[in-house]
Amino acid sequence: MEILTKRIVLEMIAETDIKDITHEIENFISEKKIKNGTAVIFSVGSTAAISTIEYEPGLMKDIPKALERIAPSKIDYEHHKTWHDDNGKSHVRSTIIGSSLTVPFIDGKLTLGTWQQIVVMNLDTRAREREVIIQLIGE
Amino acid sequence: MEILTKRIVLEMIAETDIKDITHEIENFISEKKIKNGTAVIFSVGSTAAISTIEYEPGLMKDIPKALERIAPSKIDYEHHKTWHDDNGKSHVRSTIIGSSLTVPFIDGKLTLGTWQQIVVMNLDTRAREREVIIQLIGE
Amino acid sequence: MEILTKRIVLEMIAETDIKDITHEIENFISEKKIKNGTAVIFSVGSTAAISTIEYEPGLMKDIPKALERIAPSKIDYEHHKTWHDDNGKSHVRSTIIGSSLTVPFIDGKLTLGTWQQIVVMNLDTRAREREVIIQLIGE
Repeated sequence: MEILTKRIVLEMIAETDIKDITHEIENFISEKKIKNGTAVIFSVGSTAAISTIEYEPGLMKDIPKALERIAPSKIDYEHHKTWHDDNGKSHVRSTIIGSSLTVPFIDGKLTLGTWQQIVVMNLDTRAREREVIIQLIGE
Repeated sequence: MEILTKRIVLEMIAETDIKDITHEIENFISEKKIKNGTAVIFSVGSTAAISTIEYEPGLMKDIPKALERIAPSKIDYEHHKTWHDDNGKSHVRSTIIGSSLTVPFIDGKLTLGTWQQIVVMNLDTRAREREVIIQLIGE
Repeated sequence: MEILTKRIVLEMIAETDIKDITHEIENFISEKKIKNGTAVIFSVGSTAAISTIEYEPGLMKDIPKALERIAPSKIDYEHHKTWHDDNGKSHVRSTIIGSSLTVPFIDGKLTLGTWQQIVVMNLDTRAREREVIIQLIGE
């Protein structure tokens, strides 16, 4: 049994930027020749999130609209009083979507569906370098 | 330390079908005589989700109503333009709820609360065979 | 490779109480002298949740407002007919936020961002003793 860890850094534009990182994880698994286990994917920072999605252009527009229903842009946030910034909604959205995901792999292959990709989201109101940790636990 | 993996397949009706899979995981742990570790549960596909809930009939109706607030049925989705289908809301809901869960077990017993069950949700607008991966990491 | 498990119990007030448990996890890692692996954090019970957040007072008020949009206080819940209680919204919120989180650690240090803390939420309508399981898988 082994634990293998990799940090990846992505240049991301302001909200809502959604990037497919499935290949990064697949490549790490095949490089390390690890066969069976779980990939832990974690987004560093409190205005990012990790999830799965069918990575096609339509949903890249539908997701931001849903996030507007949960944490609208045009309301006041108490968070802004703490730091005098403008990303209260980004924090709220991140906490609700979540920052970790665990995907089992079998015979060196992630158990994703055919139209299911692993994505990181930059929910912040400004462009950010986003860091993601990929950790493989397996043998 | 061992890694043990099982795929289960469930026949599910159209949205929102919620099925309790706690016993499947408990049985897998007791069959394998594994004592301490974590159960990773992952839903394959981009219109399903995994979470925990008190599995009683009232909440099976309350959850779909909440999902209507996040991703309503009666609006347009850009996703429909990509594939000319009707399940944009299903994808959005799946991404926000999430497709993985990790539940520690101690002395062969999941650390769930008494009224807390592990569920898979079929959020798609049509009946589906849904696949769930259960992976035990432990000793 | 080792698996180390700890239960912590927190006295929490009624909704929405959010408590930073980052130090509990950091201390467990440093006590056990474990270097590389993943911390699995799981909230026991169906009216609690686990996530990450920038732990500052403003967001402690912004999160409950967002949860009101997902599962409002002033509507009827079918759940109340099952048990004649008043916490249908608490269950719905818990299922959507989620009850587990996995955070990798490297060289004995959690890979959190500087302003990112691990929190447990009591979403129930009454004060509760909440139990959280912390499990380290690593070496």
